[in-house]
Amino acid sequence: MKLGTCQYQHQTYVCIAAGDQVLIPALDPSVEQSPWRDMLTLIERGVDYAAVAANATAVMRVPATAITLLAPIPRPRKNVMCLGLNYLEHAEETANQIGRTGKAPQYPIVFTKCLTSVIGHEAPVPFDPETCSQLDWEVELGVILGKGGKKITRETALAHVFGYTVINDLSARDIQLNHKQYFLGKSIDGGCPMGPWLVTADEIADPQVLAISCRVNGVTKQASSTRQMIFDVATIIEWLSRGMTLEAGDVIATGTPSGVGFVREPPEYLQPGDVVECEVQNVGVLRNRIVA
Amino acid sequence: MKLGTCQYQHQTYVCIAAGDQVLIPALDPSVEQSPWRDMLTLIERGVDYAAVAANATAVMRVPATAITLLAPIPRPRKNVMCLGLNYLEHAEETANQIGRTGKAPQYPIVFTKCLTSVIGHEAPVPFDPETCSQLDWEVELGVILGKGGKKITRETALAHVFGYTVINDLSARDIQLNHKQYFLGKSIDGGCPMGPWLVTADEIADPQVLAISCRVNGVTKQASSTRQMIFDVATIIEWLSRGMTLEAGDVIATGTPSGVGFVREPPEYLQPGDVVECEVQNVGVLRNRIVA
Repeated sequence: MKLGTCQYQHQTYVCIAAGDQVLIPALDPSVEQSPWRDMLTLIERGVDYAAVAANATAVMRVPATAITLLAPIPRPRKNVMCLGLNYLEHAEETANQIGRTGKAPQYPIVFTKCLTSVIGHEAPVPFDPETCSQLDWEVELGVILGKGGKKITRETALAHVFGYTVINDLSARDIQLNHKQYFLGKSIDGGCPMGPWLVTADEIADPQVLAISCRVNGVTKQASSTRQMIFDVATIIEWLSRGMTLEAGDVIATGTPSGVGFVREPPEYLQPGDVVECEVQNVGVLRNRIVA
Repeated sequence: MKLGTCQYQHQTYVCIAAGDQVLIPALDPSVEQSPWRDMLTLIERGVDYAAVAANATAVMRVPATAITLLAPIPRPRKNVMCLGLNYLEHAEETANQIGRTGKAPQYPIVFTKCLTSVIGHEAPVPFDPETCSQLDWEVELGVILGKGGKKITRETALAHVFGYTVINDLSARDIQLNHKQYFLGKSIDGGCPMGPWLVTADEIADPQVLAISCRVNGVTKQASSTRQMIFDVATIIEWLSRGMTLEAGDVIATGTPSGVGFVREPPEYLQPGDVVECEVQNVGVLRNRIVA
C-alpha cells in the first residue's frame, strides 16, 4: 500500500494512493488527534490502514490531481540518519576524487541531514549560489521504522521497518568538503526531497534487489541496484541500534550508488531549471526542480 | 534567571531556580497546553517568565530537594548541533593523536548528537562495554536559540539566543574513530548530559569570557575559557544559518577545550563509578555518574 501526506482543501491528511485517485479518510472534524492527520501518529499507533482503505464509507475518493503531496513525513521527529559511501563503486569514485584509496568502509559511515531540509515530491529546491555552487544529486532508498528498539539483530531488523520511500540526499559539495563533517553540506533548506509515497513494507519482499537510478533532465546519471549496498538495510539497523535507541518514525537514507556529479570529468552540478528524478523500483519516482 | 524542566509530584513542569527553593507555576489542571509544561513551548511563545516569577500568587515555592531536574529541554525538536575542534589547543591535541597536523579549522566542523542521547543533571550515564570501551568527556557551553532565522549575521546573532546551559558532549571514541563521521560515536544513549539549568541570555553579558572546566572524580581534566573558541557563539550562528533555517529551541554545543581523555598518555576513559562534573562560569555545574 502507498501512504502519503497530502494537502487537500487546505487541510493536511495521511492518504492512500489508488491509481489515479487518492483515498482520504473521512475525518470527524471534532477529532483533532486523528492519526490520519499525521503519518508519525499513524505509524506509532499501529493503525490498521488497510482496513480503513477497504471501508468505502470511511474514505473519500478524490482525483490525484486534487491533492498536493508533501513528504510522507514532512517533519521527522529527529534528523534523517544517512549512510555515506555505502555502495562500493561510489566509495571508489569518491576516493579517487579526493585522492584517497577507495575501499569499502569497514564500519558504516553515518551522518545526519537536518530535518528542516525535508521537502516533498515536486517541491522546488531553492538554489542559493551565495551558499552553495556545487549542488549534487544522490538517489537513495529511504527506510522508515515502524518499531524502535536497541541492539536489534540483523536477523530481526526488517520486522522493524514500516515502509520505504525514495530520498534524494542532495549534497552541497563545497560546504560538505570545506566543513569536513558532512552535516552542514547535507542540510541546506530543500536538501532532502523525500517521497512521493511511503510504500509499506509488505509490498517490498526484499529491499536488496531493487533497481535504483537517478536522471537529470532525462539523462541517466546513476543506475545500480540495492544489491550493491555494502551494509544492507538489516545490517544498517543493527549497527545504528547498537548504542542508540531507535524509535518508530525514524528515517534512514541508505546511501547512494556511483554516478554523482562531483566526481565527473568535468564535474557536473545542478543548476536552476534542472529536474532531478530519483527512482527506486517498486517504491517510486521522486521528482524535483532546482529553482533560482 | 535560571529555568529548568523538573518532575514534581509525578508531573513535569518548567520551573525557576530560587536559591534552595524552586518556583513552580501554579497551573490550572484543566489547561493541558500551558507553556509551563514544556520549555520549548515556553520559548516559542515568548512567555514573560520574569513576570510570572515575580507574581507570588502565580507560583508555588517548593524546596529544591523536592524536585528532580530533567535536562532543560528533555527532548529537543531536532538533533543537537555540535562544533568539533573549536578550541585551538583541542584541535592540536586531537591532530597529534591521530597523526595529522594540528591547525585551526578554516570552516566550522559541525556534526550532530541524536536527541535521544539527552539526559539531565545527576542522571546516570549507562556504561555499555559491549558497544563502547572508550567513553570520553567534553565540557561545552550550550546555546539555546529563542528565535530562528536564516542568514543571521554575527552582528545580530546573540539577539537570537534564549539562554545558555552546560553540555557534556560524551564521546565514544572507538565508535567515533571507526565510523569516520562522528554521529554514531556521539549519540549513544545517555551521551548528551545537559543542564542543570538554562540560564537566560540576559544573565550572560558576554558568552566569550566564561571559565569552562571539567573534573573527573574531583580531578581537573579541562580548564580553559570560552575566549579560546575559534568560532565564537555569534559566528557559529552565522555559519549554521547560511544555508539552513534555524528554529527557536535549537540546541548548539559550541565545542570543547583541550584536556580530553583519549589524547592523554596513557589514554584515560570513563569507567563505571566515575563522576564527571562539567562547569561553565555563571551557567552551572553539570554532574553525572557513569553507571554499569
